[in-house]
Amino acid sequence: MISNFSYKSSWLKAGVTVLALGLSQACSETVQAAEKSDISTQSVSAFDAQMTALAASIDARMLTDVPVPVPADAGGGYTHEQHKQNGKTIYEAGMLYQHTGDEKYKNFARDILLDYAELYPTLGLHPEHKPSTAGQLFWQGLNEAVWLVYVIQGYETFRDDLSPQAREKIETGVLNPMADFLSIGSPQTFDRIHNHGTWAAAAVGMTGYVLGQQERVEKSLLGLSQDGEAGFLKQMDMLFSPDGYYAEGPYYQRYAMMPFVLFSQAIEKNEPERKIFEYRDGIVLKAIRATVQQSYAGKFFPINDAIREKGLNTVELKYGLAVAYDLTNDPTLLGAVQLQDGSVVPTPEGRKLLDDIAAGKAKPFEFKSLELRDGRNGDEGALMVLRSGPESDASAVVMKATTQGLGHGHFDKLGLLYYDNASEVVADYGAVRFLNVEAKFGGRYLPENDSYGKQTIAHNTLVVDEKSHYDGDWRESQKFSPDVLKFGNINGVQVAAAEVDTAYEGVNLQRVVAMVPREDGIAPYVIDILRGQSGDGHVYDLPVHYKGQLIETNFPLEHETTQMNVFGKANGYQHLWQRAVSPELEGQQDMSWLIGDKFYTMTFAVDGPYKAYLTELGANDPNHNFRKEQALILRTEADNAGFVSVYESHGRYDNDEEVTVFDGSSVEQISTDKLETATAYTVSMKNGDVVTIYLADDTQADQTHKISHKNKQVEWSGAVHVTQ
Amino acid sequence: MISNFSYKSSWLKAGVTVLALGLSQACSETVQAAEKSDISTQSVSAFDAQMTALAASIDARMLTDVPVPVPADAGGGYTHEQHKQNGKTIYEAGMLYQHTGDEKYKNFARDILLDYAELYPTLGLHPEHKPSTAGQLFWQGLNEAVWLVYVIQGYETFRDDLSPQAREKIETGVLNPMADFLSIGSPQTFDRIHNHGTWAAAAVGMTGYVLGQQERVEKSLLGLSQDGEAGFLKQMDMLFSPDGYYAEGPYYQRYAMMPFVLFSQAIEKNEPERKIFEYRDGIVLKAIRATVQQSYAGKFFPINDAIREKGLNTVELKYGLAVAYDLTNDPTLLGAVQLQDGSVVPTPEGRKLLDDIAAGKAKPFEFKSLELRDGRNGDEGALMVLRSGPESDASAVVMKATTQGLGHGHFDKLGLLYYDNASEVVADYGAVRFLNVEAKFGGRYLPENDSYGKQTIAHNTLVVDEKSHYDGDWRESQKFSPDVLKFGNINGVQVAAAEVDTAYEGVNLQRVVAMVPREDGIAPYVIDILRGQSGDGHVYDLPVHYKGQLIETNFPLEHETTQMNVFGKANGYQHLWQRAVSPELEGQQDMSWLIGDKFYTMTFAVDGPYKAYLTELGANDPNHNFRKEQALILRTEADNAGFVSVYESHGRYDNDEEVTVFDGSSVEQISTDKLETATAYTVSMKNGDVVTIYLADDTQADQTHKISHKNKQVEWSGAVHVTQ
Repeated sequence: MISNFSYKSSWLKAGVTVLALGLSQACSETVQAAEKSDISTQSVSAFDAQMTALAASIDARMLTDVPVPVPADAGGGYTHEQHKQNGKTIYEAGMLYQHTGDEKYKNFARDILLDYAELYPTLGLHPEHKPSTAGQLFWQGLNEAVWLVYVIQGYETFRDDLSPQAREKIETGVLNPMADFLSIGSPQTFDRIHNHGTWAAAAVGMTGYVLGQQERVEKSLLGLSQDGEAGFLKQMDMLFSPDGYYAEGPYYQRYAMMPFVLFSQAIEKNEPERKIFEYRDGIVLKAIRATVQQSYAGKFFPINDAIREKGLNTVELKYGLAVAYDLTNDPTLLGAVQLQDGSVVPTPEGRKLLDDIAAGKAKPFEFKSLELRDGRNGDEGALMVLRSGPESDASAVVMKATTQGLGHGHFDKLGLLYYDNASEVVADYGAVRFLNVEAKFGGRYLPENDSYGKQTIAHNTLVVDEKSHYDGDWRESQKFSPDVLKFGNINGVQVAAAEVDTAYEGVNLQRVVAMVPREDGIAPYVIDILRGQSGDGHVYDLPVHYKGQLIETNFPLEHETTQMNVFGKANGYQHLWQRAVSPELEGQQDMSWLIGDKFYTMTFAVDGPYKAYLTELGANDPNHNFRKEQALILRTEADNAGFVSVYESHGRYDNDEEVTVFDGSSVEQISTDKLETATAYTVSMKNGDVVTIYLADDTQADQTHKISHKNKQVEWSGAVHVTQ
Repeated sequence: MISNFSYKSSWLKAGVTVLALGLSQACSETVQAAEKSDISTQSVSAFDAQMTALAASIDARMLTDVPVPVPADAGGGYTHEQHKQNGKTIYEAGMLYQHTGDEKYKNFARDILLDYAELYPTLGLHPEHKPSTAGQLFWQGLNEAVWLVYVIQGYETFRDDLSPQAREKIETGVLNPMADFLSIGSPQTFDRIHNHGTWAAAAVGMTGYVLGQQERVEKSLLGLSQDGEAGFLKQMDMLFSPDGYYAEGPYYQRYAMMPFVLFSQAIEKNEPERKIFEYRDGIVLKAIRATVQQSYAGKFFPINDAIREKGLNTVELKYGLAVAYDLTNDPTLLGAVQLQDGSVVPTPEGRKLLDDIAAGKAKPFEFKSLELRDGRNGDEGALMVLRSGPESDASAVVMKATTQGLGHGHFDKLGLLYYDNASEVVADYGAVRFLNVEAKFGGRYLPENDSYGKQTIAHNTLVVDEKSHYDGDWRESQKFSPDVLKFGNINGVQVAAAEVDTAYEGVNLQRVVAMVPREDGIAPYVIDILRGQSGDGHVYDLPVHYKGQLIETNFPLEHETTQMNVFGKANGYQHLWQRAVSPELEGQQDMSWLIGDKFYTMTFAVDGPYKAYLTELGANDPNHNFRKEQALILRTEADNAGFVSVYESHGRYDNDEEVTVFDGSSVEQISTDKLETATAYTVSMKNGDVVTIYLADDTQADQTHKISHKNKQVEWSGAVHVTQ
């Protein structure tokens, strides 16, 4: 099956040829690029500079022995990290060989691989293996698949130039047995519709292409039994929604995307007749774009078990953008690259990104308000994003009305995130985890991820009777999804609305979030209506996990001064300290806080009497596993509860100029009117502006409503209407 | 006294002439600059771009009435902010008039001043005035002086071009009466050796030059009675140490520096024969450089009542660098400008900065290890800074062995700050204050600034018997200063050492801080020896206010799980929650934490048994005035206590690459040996390196020591010696 890698091979040769033409052509290309982009003619291209830096790093590694230790440690430990690094070294040496043609890189990678060919046949299961997904070189098979994905790409660049003996030894010693282990040796993972399965399919399939083993490719595409009930294509069908949303959320989407991107690229190169990038209406490219859209100021929305630091700079997204741009030449993808840290993947596709940016081809990536439908068929709820503009740091609100997101999902139906001015304003904790920090439970999810991170109280949504949605049972939750009631623009106001009546038995939860534009240069109002409806009495808690420094509340609070007690007993409440409590409140109140150089005010009203609590995270945390976080919790006891909140960004706190402007709430009144077939929520501003949001009792999309309200006739169809 | 401003006047005309030559010359200048600096020939100069932006801002302000309200509010309130802004508007309009020659800017500023000429004569003391330092337009006279400093600079640019009527009205209506009020009307401030006095002197003296009133100038220079016992020159003598250190610390130094710089500049222009910039061995330029040196990663060391956000970007330092560069052409000052945010002051000196940077003249500002002696004669202690390199974000340690710093000083003798990797690692709280935030006590210092911020426990130094140094009496503290025992390099190790025996009756406090270099690319070890010596039993607490996330301790801790109690009763202890406590410990222990992408480990040993506490700030804080901060507190009860700590920066926490390296402590052993005339502190590293610090019993500088230790003869003179 030589033909399988002939394309790659000629592409490699072409690369070497360009280099063989010597510096004169390279300079003349650079000159042209420089003329287009006003860069000095003496500068080397950004990509060449990056490859020179990579060469320096690999050259340094060549000076010492590369250890290939007997596997001993779990994630974060020495042997784990060493093998990870070795996989990358082989990959990077291959890319440098391709880029420079210098034999030393080929020989360096080859020698490391020969060591692995000695080691691998001696291994059984890793001594610290995860029983469900064991590896040999690593504690979990996932890491082994990732290792092979890197290594096989490096190997491809020099396989043809190896001696037959070396090739034979490497392939029989490590590449084939590892590909066997990951496929026929690990059927429970390989045939699983899950990102671990995708990584295994990619590793095995890419190995099949490089080694000329079409059967591996077929198994990877169609499952071990080659019937299409498992494998890569099935995973493309099942793991993304038609909008390119990945059920576990953007943090895992980024990770899951990488094998989709790389294996698709290999398929395209080896079997272009499969038109893999057109598969399922171009799902791979959709997923890449959707991942970028699920970020704010460079970081992914930290929903579900997310590591909050992850964002556009991750290597997976670098591959994604490089491959997507190579296929589409869409200049806004270059704009997305410009939001990254400046480095690209060390491949020809990476070079193209930097060259085309230097040639002035980039256009800004356009962030959008969008509804990313969840579920294979797009009918299992949605992640809804409202943005005030196309910039990565315009105001944004996210409502999570998706499915649970499997085992890494959080119990946060209708959860809300609010961003402004490049900061989180109302935020999600993310995962309770220190990635790969051995001292923190081997870098794995910490016990507090279950006892707090996933619980409903850790999110910005309604908690009933201090219990989590679906009683904290993710398999139960996975059976249901919220109904999207509205997504779109109504009379100049952006609206997202959804409901769910399965999260708590006998309680219907509804949320409407509206982004109301203000004058130019002022961030929009965000109006948030959240209600729980039930025939029976319940305790309703609305937690608001605000960031920054509390400045003032217009209601009294009694702060704990010499003793602080735990706020509750279970379901995450046992991790909160009760910092302060208000007396019983009625009607409209507000609270203001400071983040960076802006003030935020939340003006809110609750149906019936309520109390406000301030809490701090950290109780029952014997191992100091939490960050310091805080929340406002509004609590009311009733059959039905309605919370209306208006968020606004205002003022200025400029320490360099010593200018402070703090205006506080600009909301005059929040009123709730129960009408014949709907409830009207009216927010009046001090400047006279008025916005009314109507939420119908009957939320069906085709239901028409005709209501008299404040001496006006209002007509609409569907669950939600807005006037202003 | 026309001659007093003739220089300025001709300089102004020259500026206008250049502009009158039109765009052709400007373009040819730009082209030359561009050729030198590889900037595209089509770009305008950075300074012109900045002035164009300023013009747009002023043009917008011209479209609406400029309110000149009757004074009503204290700091942060509406009238306060409006008058501040108006002062700046007059200044900026003046600068634009000078830059463009466009009459509209002159007329705009004139009209605002005419409104002030109507208002000012009707005013008595401000309704919210601070009794000790009252103002008329503002609640405190300080703001009034600042206003006049800005306004008189703007006025100077167009005074000659006003009608005699307008000039007369403005000068008799507002400029003269305000200058009178700030001098003869406020003698307690004007003749005070204090930064308020400097501002008043500058305002009145600069007004004197512009209005041709030499008597005002003389009073400003020599005090109201013109005997030299007060006034600007006396302030230059008294307020800075010979090294340019300002007793209140860098936050106030920055603020105090501005009137020194601007008034000096006016003196230089009007009376160059005074050679004001050579006065006291060039003290003004020394102070400017010293201010930059007292910063880390762009922010000032937050000692004393500092607002932590303040740093190199502040407008005062922009004036300082512009004037200093104009006088010296020192290219490293351009390097300091490059650490700012890119904007400069809107003056010819500002233009020169940007033009010369564009011409490639800048060299990096060199941050240094330095001893900034405190006290008028340089004999009252010192601020000692150790740095591992010349970059603004190299490792740095600061020991505060200065005087109290007057009423804004904190009780933190021998206090320590530790920085690395562009982050604070062990930090100072700074002032408990939200500058100008009306809702936070009018933006003034909060009560918790006294009850916590200034107290010793809020700092990283020894607390004896839960009391603050000098029992928290700043006037008592002001009488004393620590003795510097050593500052310099000993056998390749940078050392700072000091002692004080007045902070607590009967207790001598000594601290030695050493920066020990490691291999290239690895941040140095910081060894900190702190000891208290007394004949009587005491409780010694060493608080370490570490930033970031605790990762692990190698000693057991019992964490409070459901109830957290206050740590102590008074002197700041009442604001700490006790989060965790260890059992009784002996010998060497360590603790590690994470900041950004680096880990930090503090390995420590204490003479005799001790306990470790983890505390959190926030008890007895009914108004939520504190940030969330944390500390490790080591406590021992003894006659004499010795704490040896070794700080190291290590590892990597890279979420983009998913690489975590955490090695923990690299310290094998910390040992303390009491020898004949000294104590030897030996730190042995796991790699075999050994450092020994000798601290003599007799700390006199001229005392020689000859000791046998570990079979070696060690000889030195003075308090401290190091071998490695």
